[in-house]
Amino acid sequence: MAFRLPASRLCKAVAVPASTVRPMRTPGLSRHTSQKQLRWLATPTPQHPETQNATGSRGPTAMVFLNMGGPSTTDEVGDFLSRLFSDADLIPLGRLQGYIGPLLSKRRTPKIQKQYAAIGGGSPIRKWSELQCAEMCKLLDKISPETAPHKPYVAFRYANPLTEDMYERLLADGFGNGNGGRAVAFTQYPQYSCSTTGSSINELWKWRQRLEGKSGPLEDGNDGAIEWSVIDRWPVHPGLVEAFARNIEEKLAEYPEERRDKVVLLFSAHSLPMSVVNRGDPYPAEVAATVYAVMQRLKFSNQYRLCWQSQVGPQPWLGPQTATSVKEYIAKGQKDLVLIPIAFTSDHIETLYELDKEIIRESGHADTVKRVESLNGNPIFIEALANLAKSHLDSGITASLQMGLRCPGCKSDRCAESKKFFAGQPALAAP
Amino acid sequence: MAFRLPASRLCKAVAVPASTVRPMRTPGLSRHTSQKQLRWLATPTPQHPETQNATGSRGPTAMVFLNMGGPSTTDEVGDFLSRLFSDADLIPLGRLQGYIGPLLSKRRTPKIQKQYAAIGGGSPIRKWSELQCAEMCKLLDKISPETAPHKPYVAFRYANPLTEDMYERLLADGFGNGNGGRAVAFTQYPQYSCSTTGSSINELWKWRQRLEGKSGPLEDGNDGAIEWSVIDRWPVHPGLVEAFARNIEEKLAEYPEERRDKVVLLFSAHSLPMSVVNRGDPYPAEVAATVYAVMQRLKFSNQYRLCWQSQVGPQPWLGPQTATSVKEYIAKGQKDLVLIPIAFTSDHIETLYELDKEIIRESGHADTVKRVESLNGNPIFIEALANLAKSHLDSGITASLQMGLRCPGCKSDRCAESKKFFAGQPALAAP
Repeated sequence: MAFRLPASRLCKAVAVPASTVRPMRTPGLSRHTSQKQLRWLATPTPQHPETQNATGSRGPTAMVFLNMGGPSTTDEVGDFLSRLFSDADLIPLGRLQGYIGPLLSKRRTPKIQKQYAAIGGGSPIRKWSELQCAEMCKLLDKISPETAPHKPYVAFRYANPLTEDMYERLLADGFGNGNGGRAVAFTQYPQYSCSTTGSSINELWKWRQRLEGKSGPLEDGNDGAIEWSVIDRWPVHPGLVEAFARNIEEKLAEYPEERRDKVVLLFSAHSLPMSVVNRGDPYPAEVAATVYAVMQRLKFSNQYRLCWQSQVGPQPWLGPQTATSVKEYIAKGQKDLVLIPIAFTSDHIETLYELDKEIIRESGHADTVKRVESLNGNPIFIEALANLAKSHLDSGITASLQMGLRCPGCKSDRCAESKKFFAGQPALAAP
Repeated sequence: MAFRLPASRLCKAVAVPASTVRPMRTPGLSRHTSQKQLRWLATPTPQHPETQNATGSRGPTAMVFLNMGGPSTTDEVGDFLSRLFSDADLIPLGRLQGYIGPLLSKRRTPKIQKQYAAIGGGSPIRKWSELQCAEMCKLLDKISPETAPHKPYVAFRYANPLTEDMYERLLADGFGNGNGGRAVAFTQYPQYSCSTTGSSINELWKWRQRLEGKSGPLEDGNDGAIEWSVIDRWPVHPGLVEAFARNIEEKLAEYPEERRDKVVLLFSAHSLPMSVVNRGDPYPAEVAATVYAVMQRLKFSNQYRLCWQSQVGPQPWLGPQTATSVKEYIAKGQKDLVLIPIAFTSDHIETLYELDKEIIRESGHADTVKRVESLNGNPIFIEALANLAKSHLDSGITASLQMGLRCPGCKSDRCAESKKFFAGQPALAAP
């Protein structure tokens, strides 16, 4: 993926001597600042060798994982759904969004609570996101000492930790608020959709405007706001592709050898309403790029199709539907099927409940219809995240060139402003 | 792309000595057999050095280009549309296909005739297809002497030369009818859709059954029918990608340097009805794979989107629509746009009329909205075709593994039978 690299950045920054390391100012204390955080900020000590590096010249760097998120407990389901259904970027309900949204969420809450109860009482997505981000930061400290220490943050769109809480924590930890400092918003959706990454970035921009107002980066003589950059898509990153491919190979190995090459691979991605597809959302094409890259890596060892899951409501959504496709293949006699969640990187309700309990269990062929493991704590995947982040930090780009382009049918002013802000930021000095 | 390669073929055929070359029997004369064809069949003479090679051990090989085709003159428009609207693989009109189809075609004929008149009195697709195939065969004779001579054929789905005429010509030329002989059906749609390649292959299968009945290949002790294999998709072939990318670079070079990297690339592919998409047609994902491969080759130099053109009728089709997207980008102030027909390899009504005359001319910005050249006689493209064909001939595969998989929602018995025939054929001996 090529990135926005303005002419001003063509002259690559040379290594900054240790003496010029920008010190972090003492942060304004806030309700979020813990003793542990203060310790992290104040004195790099050997207690934290993995997040400290003596050669660090431009750190610390905040690494912020963006995701839709999910309720960690069944008690959080109501709030989660309420936020979800009020987001027109995700579920466009038109003028009546403010009315229909809460209605829908209230009606669906008991049902969805039961689903979360069935998968262990809540979504594991927070656990996985925090683990992935922390582990990635440890690797980054090693492979990118120039930007160390890397400090992990997670910001969810509809569940805790919410974007505003993450932002408050950033400020409390000494980023921004006159201190400057660099933060990378790293979407955990490999393929860009306005409904997921776009919505998270718009939310980040909203809170950035609220909490840091018109402040600009320290270098420009401004009042030291956070310098943001965005990793907004990575559909065919080789490490991602490798992680998916190995999980598929492992799952295929569970079938008897004589049936193995006849197993059909069903890649499954969260669907989009056709109104979003027809507006020009880049997601379907980027998901297809991931699928093709994985099949190339597998040397097209098996037959495959791309399906779309989790359709909801009466509006038309992009198909073919995963649930229907599984039934139809079984009806055609094709009972060896491997489902591959290709647009999520962690387990959550769509894998643990919808695929495992609804589609697979209800297929009547749970012994031959299987799902590959989600990436979760997969070390190949976490290494991929670190390599991706390092390339981003090295590049000095603020967002991919593609992120600056609105969908042809986009009517959202917030989207326009948010894109202008992130894609239009001055380039950052590479380490 | 990996291909179906049964265990029986893992043992690669060794080079066959010249003495074992299978002679072509004297063909049964038919209304199609010309003196020129007979000469070609009878005595390899120096008059045809480009299609003859002394080392040829398994030739001749018929190379059959499959395409939807287009009327070469305005007089052929009526027949063309009538065939097109009666094809449920392309335009699914349900039970009333036989009634609505002719009605629609009759009503549209005068309008479409005017469009063909406006682009020079007919579609150039026959001219380009015949040239591409003939030139590819010349190259193949050089790079694949083992299967030479390669004889070019074109089979259109809805226009002359029709599939049945091509098949009659093949028989007249000494293929099949007890002679055996090898033919490669080579779709000219890089991305597989049931509406295009699928329809052409089903039609080929239909005529194969009608004209060669239950005959099998010579080797199996059968009565010497044609041995068919299929090149059914090639969405990211490096030569194809290179040809597209260079055409885009050439078009971008027409913009002043200071505007060049701000031009938005709009890839445009023929759309599909949502009923076909939701049935599980692989085309949208394969088109997206081509787009991504081209953007990778261009190092993501420009912003881009994938749009879909040529929607017709009241049913929902896949979007965003090319025509609407162009208008919307212009309304947003983005007037530098390059349209790239990414799913066609020759000029025809959708490029010369729809893109050039309707969308670009009517945009009011014909100076800044441009279209890249179609591949047509592009030597890089023709070399790509030859390399692709050589890989296929070398591989001994009869079709891609993926071709054997029906769409999850497929209800077509013809599709099932046709796939079974082509994907299930015994592997061919590699040269």
